[in-house]
Amino acid sequence: MRVYSTQTDQLADILARKYSETADVSEVVKKIIERVQQDGDQALYQLIKEIDHVTLDTLAVSESEIEAALKGVSPELLKVMEQAKENILSFHQKQVRQGFVSTEPNGVVMGQRIIPLARVGVYVPGGTAAYPSTVLMDVLPAKIAGVKKIVTMTPTDSEGNVPAAILAAASIAGVDEIYKVGGAHGVAALAYGTETIPKVDKIVGPGNIYVATAKRMVYGEVDIDMIAGPSDVLIVADHSANPRWIAADLLAQAEHDTLAQAILVTTEETLIEKVQSELEQQLAVLPRKEIAGAAIENTGKIILVKDLEEAISIANQIAPEHLELSVSEPFALLGRVENAGSVFLGHHTPEVLGDYFAGPNHTLPTEGTARFYSPLSVDDFIKKSSYLYYTEEAMKEAASAVELFAETEDLIGHARSMKVRRGE
Amino acid sequence: MRVYSTQTDQLADILARKYSETADVSEVVKKIIERVQQDGDQALYQLIKEIDHVTLDTLAVSESEIEAALKGVSPELLKVMEQAKENILSFHQKQVRQGFVSTEPNGVVMGQRIIPLARVGVYVPGGTAAYPSTVLMDVLPAKIAGVKKIVTMTPTDSEGNVPAAILAAASIAGVDEIYKVGGAHGVAALAYGTETIPKVDKIVGPGNIYVATAKRMVYGEVDIDMIAGPSDVLIVADHSANPRWIAADLLAQAEHDTLAQAILVTTEETLIEKVQSELEQQLAVLPRKEIAGAAIENTGKIILVKDLEEAISIANQIAPEHLELSVSEPFALLGRVENAGSVFLGHHTPEVLGDYFAGPNHTLPTEGTARFYSPLSVDDFIKKSSYLYYTEEAMKEAASAVELFAETEDLIGHARSMKVRRGE
Repeated sequence: MRVYSTQTDQLADILARKYSETADVSEVVKKIIERVQQDGDQALYQLIKEIDHVTLDTLAVSESEIEAALKGVSPELLKVMEQAKENILSFHQKQVRQGFVSTEPNGVVMGQRIIPLARVGVYVPGGTAAYPSTVLMDVLPAKIAGVKKIVTMTPTDSEGNVPAAILAAASIAGVDEIYKVGGAHGVAALAYGTETIPKVDKIVGPGNIYVATAKRMVYGEVDIDMIAGPSDVLIVADHSANPRWIAADLLAQAEHDTLAQAILVTTEETLIEKVQSELEQQLAVLPRKEIAGAAIENTGKIILVKDLEEAISIANQIAPEHLELSVSEPFALLGRVENAGSVFLGHHTPEVLGDYFAGPNHTLPTEGTARFYSPLSVDDFIKKSSYLYYTEEAMKEAASAVELFAETEDLIGHARSMKVRRGE
Repeated sequence: MRVYSTQTDQLADILARKYSETADVSEVVKKIIERVQQDGDQALYQLIKEIDHVTLDTLAVSESEIEAALKGVSPELLKVMEQAKENILSFHQKQVRQGFVSTEPNGVVMGQRIIPLARVGVYVPGGTAAYPSTVLMDVLPAKIAGVKKIVTMTPTDSEGNVPAAILAAASIAGVDEIYKVGGAHGVAALAYGTETIPKVDKIVGPGNIYVATAKRMVYGEVDIDMIAGPSDVLIVADHSANPRWIAADLLAQAEHDTLAQAILVTTEETLIEKVQSELEQQLAVLPRKEIAGAAIENTGKIILVKDLEEAISIANQIAPEHLELSVSEPFALLGRVENAGSVFLGHHTPEVLGDYFAGPNHTLPTEGTARFYSPLSVDDFIKKSSYLYYTEEAMKEAASAVELFAETEDLIGHARSMKVRRGE
């Protein structure tokens, strides 16, 4: 990994981010969306044939397919998924919000209601990115929010089948309907609805460039969670850090994708060489060594800083998706972290605990967007609605103020709406 | 207004929405954004000359301009704005959230922190849509959230001046910096920053098609609130409703814009003629009668329903921005309202009370997006960050579950991140 030092390198060079150079597929995606809007199910069958080279008889996954999937995965995996489900539910339950009401002495009542979204679509990628853990992470907060219908879209393999672990996770999470439609056509079907697939209020879940482009295009027609980019981790390490563990965590991130980013920020010059050597040894035995090696080469960085304060300042500027604080007193740094999707404290809390099991969500803001985005949560599956009640007396008391404000804005019809009520 | 009945008309015809046919300005906007990204302030001065036909010496509004504005508006207006500020602060204060923490008996600690956005840009339109009330509504929730820097962008008149009421409202709301840059160039400056204008984390506020298109294009680089469309109101009225008041409220909405939508849904056939006649009379004396008349003609609707249940069902399908319940028992209907930005209960609560004064926000989801969007709130100006801490024992206890899950997903590097920690 390339090594930088805040003592000798320019901060701009240290922070420079290599963004994914993605092809512009918007013309292709636009046409796919138009076809689904116009021809519904018929367009879906055709697009699945053309793009995915699969011929399907029906779009929906059947009950018997789900039953077979639950039998097709090991009892151990089912048990682990059930445990993960319990942990995820327990954490996200604490995100549930109540509305509020304010009742004033003059009779005015006003407040805010919390209402679950009616229908949500969860996109699940296919191929090597088909992760049952993501099904749990994206569906369970929607269940807690009280979403009435949760629809999952996912592409099939060349035989028209969805991986058993995905179906099992969907069943455990409580998905209502699963359809064998992936790609931009899957997103379009959720956004506009077809004869078979219900139009939803929001689409969540990761996907390739076609899925991401389609989500961006239908944004406004439906809500979306975020546009997910390559995953990243930033590890802050001090003298107490274990180089073997640090290297393993950097590689766990790097094996996702050749553009995944792994950054180490450390106060310990002696740690750098040890981590580099561990990286080399551990990479050699990793099944996905080609991907992980390319990611380390492309985007990996080791940044030497003078103290932990500077380390956190750099972390805040990078705004990582995952931030590991591999230091002796991690809680002392937590309050200074301003921009990070999820923070992992201490030497025994590798990111993977959060990826699968502990409870916090693993759908997190990427590419520095932790500056303004949040982890997926129950909040993503509710909407708010405010309400207001005035008595005749309270209305008359407020009338002159409202009329003056309306007249300032040249909205005389607004002022009249008050005036007619007080008999003018 | 065109009259429909659920007894004789098709529901699809009743619900059909006339969307704004907007020009595609994306090529123009894309070039503007590129120029601002490349040439910063210099591009802004040039674009302001080319597009707004104004020559500015400096971009920032000066302290003395703000002082002059505070003297240039009437003391009565200042007092009304201060009262509105108090009401808005009081309501939005109730939206403030706390983080949470869960401390498990086995030593595991996990939680969620609430962190204010660092920098926010508030766009304020110019011309006839320059509303000081919107400045208060968009800025005050950000202040409550704890945003450190709030920057307002707004175009000037042909003399290079910003209306006094806008500057006064910005000063009262506590805006930190105000710049005389409107349009797509104003949005681009906030998204990418220039020598003078700070790059922000989120851009909120309404604007014309250039502003809306620019916001959509920079979405992801920064966060945005929503893409605002024409404003709308839906009034549910029963036998107890006053036709004069109903007509005034429909016209208050219609005077905004020729595409603003005013809908009346009523159980009372006799009310329809009375409202039509009131509309005619009141429209005749309205200063903005051309705009309001065109809006009523374009998009106005009266829908006769058989009962209030059907009325609420139609309201939920239309998902109005503003919903007035002009009925004898409005609170009895509130719990059935699923899709509405803001609800106004009873005969003495016209929408305009909420537009200016009462406390709830007036920046609301338009064009049916109340299905999934919420009123602007303190939540729009914070982000969440989760955190996780495991002890060595807790980590070892979870290890086999995490490793099995990782292996199922073929992410052996993930499994290794656990294995190295338990000495393998």
